[in-house]
Amino acid sequence: MDAVAGPPVIRLHPEDSVAIARRALPEGAPLAPGLATARRVPPGHKVALRPHAPGDAVRRYGQIIGFATEAIAPGEWVHTHNLSMGDFARDYAWGADARPTEYVAEPATFLGIRRADGRAATRNYIGIVTSVNCSAHVAELIAEAFRRNPLTGQDPLAEWPNVDGVVALTHKTGCGMTAGEPLTLLRRTLGGFARHVNFSHVIGIGLGCEVNQIGGLLQEQRLSGRLRSMDIQEMGGTRKTVEAGIAFVREVLDEANRVERVPVSASELTVALQCGGSDGYSGITANPALGAASDLVVRHGGAVILSETPETYGAEHLFTRRAVSREVGEKLVGLMKWWEAYCEREGAEMDANPSPGNKLGGLTTILEKSLGAMAKAGTTNLVDVLRYAEPATARGFLFMDTPGYDPVAATGQVAGGANLLCFTTGRGSVFGCKPTPSIKLATNTPMYERMKDDMDVNCGGILTGEETVAEAGERIFRLMLRVASGERTKSEGFDFGTAEFAPWVLGATM
Amino acid sequence: MDAVAGPPVIRLHPEDSVAIARRALPEGAPLAPGLATARRVPPGHKVALRPHAPGDAVRRYGQIIGFATEAIAPGEWVHTHNLSMGDFARDYAWGADARPTEYVAEPATFLGIRRADGRAATRNYIGIVTSVNCSAHVAELIAEAFRRNPLTGQDPLAEWPNVDGVVALTHKTGCGMTAGEPLTLLRRTLGGFARHVNFSHVIGIGLGCEVNQIGGLLQEQRLSGRLRSMDIQEMGGTRKTVEAGIAFVREVLDEANRVERVPVSASELTVALQCGGSDGYSGITANPALGAASDLVVRHGGAVILSETPETYGAEHLFTRRAVSREVGEKLVGLMKWWEAYCEREGAEMDANPSPGNKLGGLTTILEKSLGAMAKAGTTNLVDVLRYAEPATARGFLFMDTPGYDPVAATGQVAGGANLLCFTTGRGSVFGCKPTPSIKLATNTPMYERMKDDMDVNCGGILTGEETVAEAGERIFRLMLRVASGERTKSEGFDFGTAEFAPWVLGATM
Ligand SMILES: [Ca+2]
Ligand SMILES: [Ca+2]
Ligand SMILES: [Ca+2]
Ligand SMILES: [Ca+2]
Ligand SMILES: [Ca+2]
Repeated sequence: MDAVAGPPVIRLHPEDSVAIARRALPEGAPLAPGLATARRVPPGHKVALRPHAPGDAVRRYGQIIGFATEAIAPGEWVHTHNLSMGDFARDYAWGADARPTEYVAEPATFLGIRRADGRAATRNYIGIVTSVNCSAHVAELIAEAFRRNPLTGQDPLAEWPNVDGVVALTHKTGCGMTAGEPLTLLRRTLGGFARHVNFSHVIGIGLGCEVNQIGGLLQEQRLSGRLRSMDIQEMGGTRKTVEAGIAFVREVLDEANRVERVPVSASELTVALQCGGSDGYSGITANPALGAASDLVVRHGGAVILSETPETYGAEHLFTRRAVSREVGEKLVGLMKWWEAYCEREGAEMDANPSPGNKLGGLTTILEKSLGAMAKAGTTNLVDVLRYAEPATARGFLFMDTPGYDPVAATGQVAGGANLLCFTTGRGSVFGCKPTPSIKLATNTPMYERMKDDMDVNCGGILTGEETVAEAGERIFRLMLRVASGERTKSEGFDFGTAEFAPWVLGATM
Repeated sequence: MDAVAGPPVIRLHPEDSVAIARRALPEGAPLAPGLATARRVPPGHKVALRPHAPGDAVRRYGQIIGFATEAIAPGEWVHTHNLSMGDFARDYAWGADARPTEYVAEPATFLGIRRADGRAATRNYIGIVTSVNCSAHVAELIAEAFRRNPLTGQDPLAEWPNVDGVVALTHKTGCGMTAGEPLTLLRRTLGGFARHVNFSHVIGIGLGCEVNQIGGLLQEQRLSGRLRSMDIQEMGGTRKTVEAGIAFVREVLDEANRVERVPVSASELTVALQCGGSDGYSGITANPALGAASDLVVRHGGAVILSETPETYGAEHLFTRRAVSREVGEKLVGLMKWWEAYCEREGAEMDANPSPGNKLGGLTTILEKSLGAMAKAGTTNLVDVLRYAEPATARGFLFMDTPGYDPVAATGQVAGGANLLCFTTGRGSVFGCKPTPSIKLATNTPMYERMKDDMDVNCGGILTGEETVAEAGERIFRLMLRVASGERTKSEGFDFGTAEFAPWVLGATM
């Protein structure tokens, strides 16, 4: 929080009753006409913008972060001495804060690819799904035959310019695992990728003797019409399977190439929201900016998927208030209970409470801290809660259960059908998730400058006052439309997005 | 068991008191001069070779599979009606069956690479170790710059013929994980690869904000002198890190290339033993044949590592009898207790008991079934028990705790220092594990013929009587020496062995 120029505070949302100090503010620092700090406010801390009576809600990101424990005058520093959670967490208040969405009259459009089944794609890949690690290398050998050589520039797909590439989705599991929940989860993930709208054609490759049989996957996920599948053992080994896989890709390339981009409503965007390598600016710049863009996506009729359940643990009351129904809210509470049991079983701990360091940095309550991550999803109603990798068909703000770990979380979201992903980062994550393009948003200008090759958007201007959260949100939304139309992200330039395929692994490895 | 030609039975070890019927044998079928079947024996089932009094041990693979419950005459069918475990599992009988190893006077040699620290390598790679999935793609981009193009044959390493390649070891974990056992396990694995004798030079690549910090890895695994490490965030992103990685490899290529193969004692072989895609022949052909080769490795002063703890659960008494000391035996019993707790926590089950199908196929006791997998390790004394990925320094027969799942098990063994791996398979696994060459042994001729491109050795001749177990073992041992000397295995021809790097993941993904 060492920004020294620009306005003294950032207001993250028009409804906020507090603003965030951009830098250390002395007593008497002017904030607005007729408003000055009543005492010293540390950098990153909150200052009241209007009077709060004891018990009044304090809002940041347009949402409740707690209640005044005493009267707070405008200009006062707001922290643990005058703000607490109160009784907030004792009442789920199902839907209490749900409001009608203000849809735009005419949604924006992007240039998308209309599939025969009516869905809209943002990219056009050919996919290779693997049932087990034992078929990973064979899948990679097939994909490799179609990969552009980075040294010579030689491109086996040059004749098929509308095909973005051949993607081998490989992983470390699929056998030595128990049937039941772990296998169901893996199959849902593989099924989601096999059905992904950004794949024109998909091959499935198994070894033959694995727990996760390709046949069972096809049946359980209803993929028989979608997937050309083969087992290495049945095909007679590596060479024959690779040859058959290459032949299949060659066979479908002309058809895969016969696509054109046509105007498609922004309502067909399904945007996965991610953050990784967060820093003290995440909750002030990139996350709220992405939240403003998320509100635009939803107002244009589209969907955004927030995830990372452990990072919202303890703040689920914020979601239940925004749920469109008690049923949806209860699904979320059910997830939290599952995670409690899971962590207990595994000897792990979920604790989203602000640490002493967080408190020094200005975060007062667990709600406020969780909102830092949740801010990515904006302020609209929670319309559905999905299990990991479950198809995201509803429009609006959706929550999907995933771990916080980026590749595993994003894999679930893409499996759920996300055709765009936005990833905020403070430390500088490098990330891609084929077949879905990933837009990287930097929380601060120094990191953006240092990692310009990898970052698509700099949200650091919010901190320096060059841009408001709303302006950044609008800018991100426009970029989403361009990327959905085919503009390449930085990570696509580096060919990221296969190593990062990481299905959530549950249960014992046997 | 449909072999119709050749001798009627297979004797798997000279000390065995039973032999295995190659095919269905009618009553009165001649087995040897003066010995015929006393009644019908189903294919794959056991027939007594000598008289057993009630309580006499019955031996297969030279080891106890149970005790006669009644008098058994030579030529009698031996199964559940006259054979049981008796009290075998009530007494660990620490070291009761340990015997002096009959070392050969002059160990065989192979042409190995002598490293500066005195260790002997079988291959000469440059390695790239990654701390976290978030640095996986960057590592792959570096390795890709040095990869032979399979289409054009263009080889960036053509000038350095003694360098076998640049290997990026990537995985799905390293963050969103708990410190403690899961992190320790990952670091021990990465440390083992970083120190692997088959790497001349190693780079370590991290992102920068991961739980598994490269700095902590270096310190905990004492790798500072061994590893050139860098964090993507500190380097300024993907491009700069890839450029630095490529520059490092170019810098060391000349030095890496300055190796020559010199005669090295077979005592410097550390052979990992694996089986995957087992079938009804595994315990009759390839596993005992590999066991005979393992005995030769040990008699020549080398080490073999058996693993796959869940597959030996319930048969640990076989090992405790062969342990060189009570302490070594107790380590093994400790592993079994850990697995019991692990499986209970994860709701998984370990059950090595013969299933009804196993019994129909001729397996009578849990000892006999487990011995089918354990046969790979031959008959010498158990000299040490290692944790997953722990350095295998002792010589002789070692047991390393791993899951049964092939890639995870082999990753632990290679991390432990295996410079050769032998993999038996009935269904036909395709597998590699860089930097260590992997020899594939087929249990049956039809699969060998079907998957000739992938199989190095056919053990099917044991079934048809073309070869004895001892002859096959000798043949495998000679191949081990040739492969250790540089002869390429089938899986190396296909460039297997990077996708299969799969560190054991324990604990919750958060
Ligand atoms: Ca996060
Ligand atoms: Ca994350
Ligand atoms: Ca070479
Ligand atoms: Ca096995
Ligand atoms: Ca195995």
